[in-house]
Amino acid sequence: MSLLIVGSVALDSVATPKGTVADALGGSATYFSLAARLFAPEVNVVAVVGEDFPQYHTEMLLARGINIDGLTVKKGKTFRWTGRYDEDFGDPETLDTQLNVFEEFAPELPEHYCGSSFVFLGNIDPALQRQVVTQIKSPKLVAADTMNFWIEGKPDELKALLAEIDLLIINSLEVGMLSCEKNLLCGARKILEMGPKALVVKRGEFGSLMVTADDIFLLPAYPIEEVIDPTGAGDSFAGGFMGYLALRGEVNFAELKRAIVAGTVIGSFDVEGFGVERLSSITKEDVRKRMQHFREITEFSIPEF
Amino acid sequence: MSLLIVGSVALDSVATPKGTVADALGGSATYFSLAARLFAPEVNVVAVVGEDFPQYHTEMLLARGINIDGLTVKKGKTFRWTGRYDEDFGDPETLDTQLNVFEEFAPELPEHYCGSSFVFLGNIDPALQRQVVTQIKSPKLVAADTMNFWIEGKPDELKALLAEIDLLIINSLEVGMLSCEKNLLCGARKILEMGPKALVVKRGEFGSLMVTADDIFLLPAYPIEEVIDPTGAGDSFAGGFMGYLALRGEVNFAELKRAIVAGTVIGSFDVEGFGVERLSSITKEDVRKRMQHFREITEFSIPEF
Repeated sequence: MSLLIVGSVALDSVATPKGTVADALGGSATYFSLAARLFAPEVNVVAVVGEDFPQYHTEMLLARGINIDGLTVKKGKTFRWTGRYDEDFGDPETLDTQLNVFEEFAPELPEHYCGSSFVFLGNIDPALQRQVVTQIKSPKLVAADTMNFWIEGKPDELKALLAEIDLLIINSLEVGMLSCEKNLLCGARKILEMGPKALVVKRGEFGSLMVTADDIFLLPAYPIEEVIDPTGAGDSFAGGFMGYLALRGEVNFAELKRAIVAGTVIGSFDVEGFGVERLSSITKEDVRKRMQHFREITEFSIPEF
Repeated sequence: MSLLIVGSVALDSVATPKGTVADALGGSATYFSLAARLFAPEVNVVAVVGEDFPQYHTEMLLARGINIDGLTVKKGKTFRWTGRYDEDFGDPETLDTQLNVFEEFAPELPEHYCGSSFVFLGNIDPALQRQVVTQIKSPKLVAADTMNFWIEGKPDELKALLAEIDLLIINSLEVGMLSCEKNLLCGARKILEMGPKALVVKRGEFGSLMVTADDIFLLPAYPIEEVIDPTGAGDSFAGGFMGYLALRGEVNFAELKRAIVAGTVIGSFDVEGFGVERLSSITKEDVRKRMQHFREITEFSIPEF
């Protein structure tokens, strides 16, 4: 089934202990769509870039079979982010943010996007995320991301959004902020009361947690020995997750669990290279092999005693 | 098979956001042995207490079927620790430590302990841990714990110990200190080169990792909604782990994985009450039920695409 992603396309300059890149292709919609397209037959991007956006990036996205009819080119410069990771590869230090054309981003869906079955609202102003929801005809699943900036700055708009979506994907710090609960599971349950039927919590190198009214699923992260650049890991996770669901077309807890596995494995590839380097070159066979290995290193039978 | 634990028996005064306890039974050997005895038929404790050690604690340990022939009563006071956990239940703040009789602890094994098949060297001076190893006749598995204090203060003794043991159980911070590696998996492999055939890394609320030359196993923590007191969770984990191995009598990777599951589940019970409250009252049926649930919330099948 078709999958819509609304988010950012950016040019990132990143320094990590393993090296640096300047003006590399980045942004939530970029990572998400490359990840999702490994599974989903149709990935529709809505984002904005400036006139300086290199043609070869556009061509790469097209070559990967991503639909960019909704990628608008506006007068001005592309969104730019500069950041640095230290040796433990935790949260990056933002050195510079130039929103440029992204500052005035008002997502308008091309007519043929409005029937998308699966929708992912990348981390933008919740008021804009809600505008996207109104443009979609009859989606099968609407999922969203958000961040501390909106939790603190637009709590009412965010709460209105939460009442309108099916699934929220955020990190564990954001669960604490949004729920005002220290305990992750208690916080997750509180967020479910705000509207979403499912919550997916990204815990970085510690894996992820999914909670619905009736079920819980816990998964470690796939262990990576040489992290190169963590930029986009969360968006790649979300892309793998939503892409897998869109491919399967069914939403039930068993498929949601497999979608978490898909997201985890795709996220693990992302960190192995700078920018979209790895994500734009892996094959389905690479993904299948790693999923098989992931199962081998996590499966167990119940102790007998 | 028989299991030996050498460690501390203490009286702990603990404050957590859920309440306080004063002079509660604690210490690594206490948590370990209560946890291990849920599985292992014979648990032999070597530790030291002072003349002030309450008789009812001794009786409780005996009532749980723990062999305390090696629990020496020395002139003086029992080891006392006072600590406080804040709202996120991370590492506790130590408010007071009185080593008392534990300061001069020199573990001497009763003759009938020397044939113990499974041995766990609790977190004491690595020189003393090595003295225990020399007293054991032909153990099937020798495992040890250690901490930052010994990694920094007695690196040579610790390295000598590592060459003599089969398995090391430490936390992820200690892996970084001991290996000088930021990446957990790389650090774990470096530690294996120091001697142990297997390394078990405790990651607290994020679960655990086991690494051998050929295999990896990753497991999340069992999620607990109401943590009361995390004191002893690591020792309970180690006790459940070693107790299960001693019960089964076989050491192979499949059994080691199930032992990690056993340790994880026992550790999850520990944090649900103050001190040994929960650990000294749970039944095998409680443990079996939680293991079943743990499998349900972690198992998955490989995505199809």
